[in-house]
Amino acid sequence: MKRVLLAFSGGLGTVAALHLLRRKHGLDVVTFTANLGQHGSTEDVCDRAIELGASSAHVADLRERFAVDYVFPAVRGGVVCESGYALAHALARPLIVAEMVKIARDEGAEQIAHGCAAKSNDQVRFEMAAAALAPEVPVLAPLRDAGLLHLDEVRAYCKRHGLASALEDGNRFSITENLFGTSIQWARAPDSFDEVPPEVFRRTRALADAPDAPATVLVSFKHGVPCALDGEGLAPLRLLERLATLAGEHGVGRLVTVEDRLIGIKMVEVYEQPAATVLHAARQALERIVLAPDMLQFRGVAARKLADLTYQGFWFTELREALDAFFVKASEFLTGDVRVVLHKGHCRVTGARSRYSLYSQARAEPTTEGDSFAHEGVRGYVDTLSQQLRVPREGWKPKD
Amino acid sequence: MKRVLLAFSGGLGTVAALHLLRRKHGLDVVTFTANLGQHGSTEDVCDRAIELGASSAHVADLRERFAVDYVFPAVRGGVVCESGYALAHALARPLIVAEMVKIARDEGAEQIAHGCAAKSNDQVRFEMAAAALAPEVPVLAPLRDAGLLHLDEVRAYCKRHGLASALEDGNRFSITENLFGTSIQWARAPDSFDEVPPEVFRRTRALADAPDAPATVLVSFKHGVPCALDGEGLAPLRLLERLATLAGEHGVGRLVTVEDRLIGIKMVEVYEQPAATVLHAARQALERIVLAPDMLQFRGVAARKLADLTYQGFWFTELREALDAFFVKASEFLTGDVRVVLHKGHCRVTGARSRYSLYSQARAEPTTEGDSFAHEGVRGYVDTLSQQLRVPREGWKPKD
Amino acid sequence: MKRVLLAFSGGLGTVAALHLLRRKHGLDVVTFTANLGQHGSTEDVCDRAIELGASSAHVADLRERFAVDYVFPAVRGGVVCESGYALAHALARPLIVAEMVKIARDEGAEQIAHGCAAKSNDQVRFEMAAAALAPEVPVLAPLRDAGLLHLDEVRAYCKRHGLASALEDGNRFSITENLFGTSIQWARAPDSFDEVPPEVFRRTRALADAPDAPATVLVSFKHGVPCALDGEGLAPLRLLERLATLAGEHGVGRLVTVEDRLIGIKMVEVYEQPAATVLHAARQALERIVLAPDMLQFRGVAARKLADLTYQGFWFTELREALDAFFVKASEFLTGDVRVVLHKGHCRVTGARSRYSLYSQARAEPTTEGDSFAHEGVRGYVDTLSQQLRVPREGWKPKD
Amino acid sequence: MKRVLLAFSGGLGTVAALHLLRRKHGLDVVTFTANLGQHGSTEDVCDRAIELGASSAHVADLRERFAVDYVFPAVRGGVVCESGYALAHALARPLIVAEMVKIARDEGAEQIAHGCAAKSNDQVRFEMAAAALAPEVPVLAPLRDAGLLHLDEVRAYCKRHGLASALEDGNRFSITENLFGTSIQWARAPDSFDEVPPEVFRRTRALADAPDAPATVLVSFKHGVPCALDGEGLAPLRLLERLATLAGEHGVGRLVTVEDRLIGIKMVEVYEQPAATVLHAARQALERIVLAPDMLQFRGVAARKLADLTYQGFWFTELREALDAFFVKASEFLTGDVRVVLHKGHCRVTGARSRYSLYSQARAEPTTEGDSFAHEGVRGYVDTLSQQLRVPREGWKPKD
Repeated sequence: MKRVLLAFSGGLGTVAALHLLRRKHGLDVVTFTANLGQHGSTEDVCDRAIELGASSAHVADLRERFAVDYVFPAVRGGVVCESGYALAHALARPLIVAEMVKIARDEGAEQIAHGCAAKSNDQVRFEMAAAALAPEVPVLAPLRDAGLLHLDEVRAYCKRHGLASALEDGNRFSITENLFGTSIQWARAPDSFDEVPPEVFRRTRALADAPDAPATVLVSFKHGVPCALDGEGLAPLRLLERLATLAGEHGVGRLVTVEDRLIGIKMVEVYEQPAATVLHAARQALERIVLAPDMLQFRGVAARKLADLTYQGFWFTELREALDAFFVKASEFLTGDVRVVLHKGHCRVTGARSRYSLYSQARAEPTTEGDSFAHEGVRGYVDTLSQQLRVPREGWKPKD
Repeated sequence: MKRVLLAFSGGLGTVAALHLLRRKHGLDVVTFTANLGQHGSTEDVCDRAIELGASSAHVADLRERFAVDYVFPAVRGGVVCESGYALAHALARPLIVAEMVKIARDEGAEQIAHGCAAKSNDQVRFEMAAAALAPEVPVLAPLRDAGLLHLDEVRAYCKRHGLASALEDGNRFSITENLFGTSIQWARAPDSFDEVPPEVFRRTRALADAPDAPATVLVSFKHGVPCALDGEGLAPLRLLERLATLAGEHGVGRLVTVEDRLIGIKMVEVYEQPAATVLHAARQALERIVLAPDMLQFRGVAARKLADLTYQGFWFTELREALDAFFVKASEFLTGDVRVVLHKGHCRVTGARSRYSLYSQARAEPTTEGDSFAHEGVRGYVDTLSQQLRVPREGWKPKD
Repeated sequence: MKRVLLAFSGGLGTVAALHLLRRKHGLDVVTFTANLGQHGSTEDVCDRAIELGASSAHVADLRERFAVDYVFPAVRGGVVCESGYALAHALARPLIVAEMVKIARDEGAEQIAHGCAAKSNDQVRFEMAAAALAPEVPVLAPLRDAGLLHLDEVRAYCKRHGLASALEDGNRFSITENLFGTSIQWARAPDSFDEVPPEVFRRTRALADAPDAPATVLVSFKHGVPCALDGEGLAPLRLLERLATLAGEHGVGRLVTVEDRLIGIKMVEVYEQPAATVLHAARQALERIVLAPDMLQFRGVAARKLADLTYQGFWFTELREALDAFFVKASEFLTGDVRVVLHKGHCRVTGARSRYSLYSQARAEPTTEGDSFAHEGVRGYVDTLSQQLRVPREGWKPKD
Repeated sequence: MKRVLLAFSGGLGTVAALHLLRRKHGLDVVTFTANLGQHGSTEDVCDRAIELGASSAHVADLRERFAVDYVFPAVRGGVVCESGYALAHALARPLIVAEMVKIARDEGAEQIAHGCAAKSNDQVRFEMAAAALAPEVPVLAPLRDAGLLHLDEVRAYCKRHGLASALEDGNRFSITENLFGTSIQWARAPDSFDEVPPEVFRRTRALADAPDAPATVLVSFKHGVPCALDGEGLAPLRLLERLATLAGEHGVGRLVTVEDRLIGIKMVEVYEQPAATVLHAARQALERIVLAPDMLQFRGVAARKLADLTYQGFWFTELREALDAFFVKASEFLTGDVRVVLHKGHCRVTGARSRYSLYSQARAEPTTEGDSFAHEGVRGYVDTLSQQLRVPREGWKPKD
């Protein structure tokens, strides 16, 4: 009997996938469950897999690697989609696949599988990562192939096969979670004019329930990567957790937007990303005092490309690695502290400092006593800059 | 006696400039004061100019033109700096200069003048606009030329010449205002780690003072330009004023950031831009349901260029006009309504709708019953998309 | 019997496609053949279609529309791939599909079909255009579906069914042609280090055979679009033909390159594009004297996007139309004459002039007598520009 | 007496500059002359400096450093202006200044100086490099300050002071040369429609005089940098010289264009860059077989930025170094051979190969026998890709 390694979260889709792989595909199923900081016990998930007929169930605590090799480079590079999505799940997918490819080799599994549905982005990212790391290993997508596309159909399937006992019934949302963010998916698509019901949020308080008093936190960076909160040096995982808790309490990090999925459909997306929101705001404020204008501008260009690659599943590519090399070098001096105030859903930077700052109070003075600014040169500057505007163009009159 | 036309706001700098132009340059000074929606009476400002020796004082109500020809195209094009600055003053400067060039011709003024200091952006924009519209007309910058660069020096100068009576003494800030935003300048540069003192803000309430109950406003757009609030069609000026008042009450629109001035110095900048904040958030939400992904992406590219041109004073250029032609065409379907909640400094979009929406609830369903999505094609899609990743590269192992 | 409209060039692939549609799919086949300036008689092609069992054969002379609505906007916008490919066939495909959609409606054909193979770009462009114009009309790809992917297999199929009599045997290349360019496809893929055999070229002479004496041609543009050769105003079609003939005689316009096909595979591509080569070189020279630097730079950005959209089949999109609006406005003053020398495969611009030129001999003088250049301002210009470089950065030493 | 270090080429401008610094500024002048591969003896130039009253004359052979640290990174990064200029002189300027800053420190010179005129780009680059490396060292520009802007005036000045004996009289061109290229400057600006007189070219033969027989050269690269010609490993300097000679004999590398100078004026520019032309063409061909499409696209973006920084004098910046880090990583596999044919002014690539090639003859076959291409997936690919085009938009009809 051929063996397949299935990415197994214990959610409805992956339960159905496990069953389909065994019954319909006739395969020996081994599961893999990653601990990426989501709620719930990965051991329970493994037990569930065994109950459902998996011949063995692997688990790995990938939190540290996720934080250090995926989340922190994304923070350093300012990797955020135009929609505001900080890519928590797009970042996790390549790591999961990398781990699965190794386990599949060790376990002699000739195929790997996921339980994603046909309109998801994650199916694309999963299969892109697998193509890059192990083009010879086929990827099975049992739900997609079975045409089980609707949560209700999956539920019905599970019930029919007695799989549903432990499973939530009537849930209107499906939640994907890791230490960097939460993604919330409707069971039925909302209208774009509908408000998101408040009960979907898990990690961020509603404004009404958030404390009336603001919290202040000092976020410190070293070479573009966060290293301390309120002056206390913290390991990456600890730092991300503590910051997510604090920001979530103040309602910071909710995002409701419409995205163009990779399969060409517009979807309403709901995210909770408390730590990401604070870290990107703080990093950006630090950049503005530490980096020269050309650098700021081009980092923006590179960040957008890196966000696209990440969103689209092009993680394991030479371009992604070369952009990373750019950001490592470009963040050499991105070291300093940023004061952030969290209040009623708001994340506001109120100060930044760095020993490498290019902001200088003396230079910024409106006066020029004692600073090196040659104010008498400004006329020449503008005269030269405007030179090209002074050439008369026959027939042109600017629209004023 | 040669005649000069001076841009006169009645502020300390322009008072000193008027005096310098008369006494030091020996010129006949005519003033121009634009009503762009700032506080205070432009008639009072004109009276002040005459008192100070101007031979005549012109005033023009440019609010309508500013709103229609400058602010609205900027909203349509998403013209915002990376720092978040919505360019209220950069947009106003070309209009002021365009008006001055006409008046100077009518009045026989051979020169025009401004009261900007040597580290300001506005001096650059003023002189760039003048170079484009009237390259033959010299621009005088009496404060810069006199080396009067410090607010204290200007004050001392004014006192010495008996000009200071009506003028604020000891002010730590200088305020520039128009209907689209306020810019607040320190008399002495702060440290980048200092908090902005709450008393500087004029148009936006502190979070503590903002109402506990959120306000909801429905913003409607037609072809990318705002046209109604809460379903009530409003003239541009009325719409901008009403929205600014409402958003300001809820503390929306404060921005404290560090910018690279055009003269190469990093400065702390403080803005209040309540209407701009709401309009850009709403327009962006509308874009996300109405526009295709490629269009969204390229509008971002074009918007950044348009923001750069505006910031740098390249308003009266063929490129700016061609980008405007792009946005007019690219906003043909940007018509619809956006629901925005204003609360405690926060501006949150909670829904968007348009008869031209490309978001379709039916398509966005996780299920594919009855929609046209060919889910069975996704495998082929990913196989083809990942084709380039599958080519073995000798010697390359992705960093996982 | 259901009816299908097939794009029919009379080439091997379309002959097999016609047969497959009738025999395998059991359809009533109507053909469409466009005259886009390729060699050979479209009537003969229609006769061939009828012989092969088509129930009727449509033909349309699309040359004028192709030149005016597709080729000229591409010239105006500088739409060329990074590889140098001027997109002759990518530009033709949308027009063919647009025409087919109309004919299909008139003829009651419920489906349309093409004879492209599975690794071609044109299949993608065909189907993308059809999706945009008539999403409800299915597109058949009989060769791709039959797995007839190899020219040899197609030949064998044709022989087996007695279709091959009139068809070239043993051809190593398949040629696609229109008035703007020729694309040459290997029957068997070459090694990337192989030289292209000289006999494949049809429209451009080898350097050895090109005249020893250079030819000079004056190309005139109006609003970015070519309008005259050597001072003689010419209709678009006539101009393109005459220029292609002249440039081809001098061996101008050959291109051998490697491209990434849309389906993710690198292919060697061979093109002949004599008129395109001259027109783009001439337009670029005209741009350099007529347009301001910011405009030149941003036109480059917009042109790359337009080339991508065209290459990838996103022709019938709002973004393409908005970019076109940009280029119309941005080419308002792109009127003038360019002298081009054609010699031994080389296309060299030796002069450009325009009444709208921003190049001024007086300004370009190294001297400043009598021109408006304020040389004494240069120091101020550089001092201000270098301001940001003068700020000492702790710990940084430029690598020199 | 204060000491100044002058960049001294022995050309007319620097001769006048030396005299002005001594007589007008009353300074002790030390000169610096770099050997960057130009014609003529640097010793003779030093002798001339001493004759003219320099208290000492420094010389340094910077050819190796120039080739390795400036030219090769530019080749690797594809650093070429939109005009086609390969930046030979823009690349040399920072190196000259870096060396001068060191010598000035050793020699106790408190100032440095150049002999550039007021409309040159090199004055800007010189002063930008100096500002970055030694902001405390003033830069003198004696010609610009004296208003000696015209070649005739400089000549008159030299004659008047008996300096002109050894100097060319009546020359219509001033030549700047180094091992990577030559720049030719008119004494009087030409009309943009004038042809360049053939006698200005020094290193490249006219087409008429170039050999009738083509030459073929195999250019090999390692990690993006050229390492061998025709299979023979060559030191950088030797390689650049040999290639320049060969290409020049065949008339390859002439460029006549119009550029926007940094001071805002359009100028006709004439370059000879034989080695650069061949190396960039070869590198690009190698890229096309070795690199993935996303990498190719983004390298283009990064290259344009790097070209801008180089052209504008922003060499000694963190952004330039970070872009270099990007290209080092992005060129890891840019190793292989390119066959180039040189003939009658033409440089044509006829083949490329690499052990890291992503081009595969087997994949590029129109057939799919035995390759991994899943042709049956193409329909799904196009269906998914065109998904967004299929959404009906009320009121939109594509312009066909």
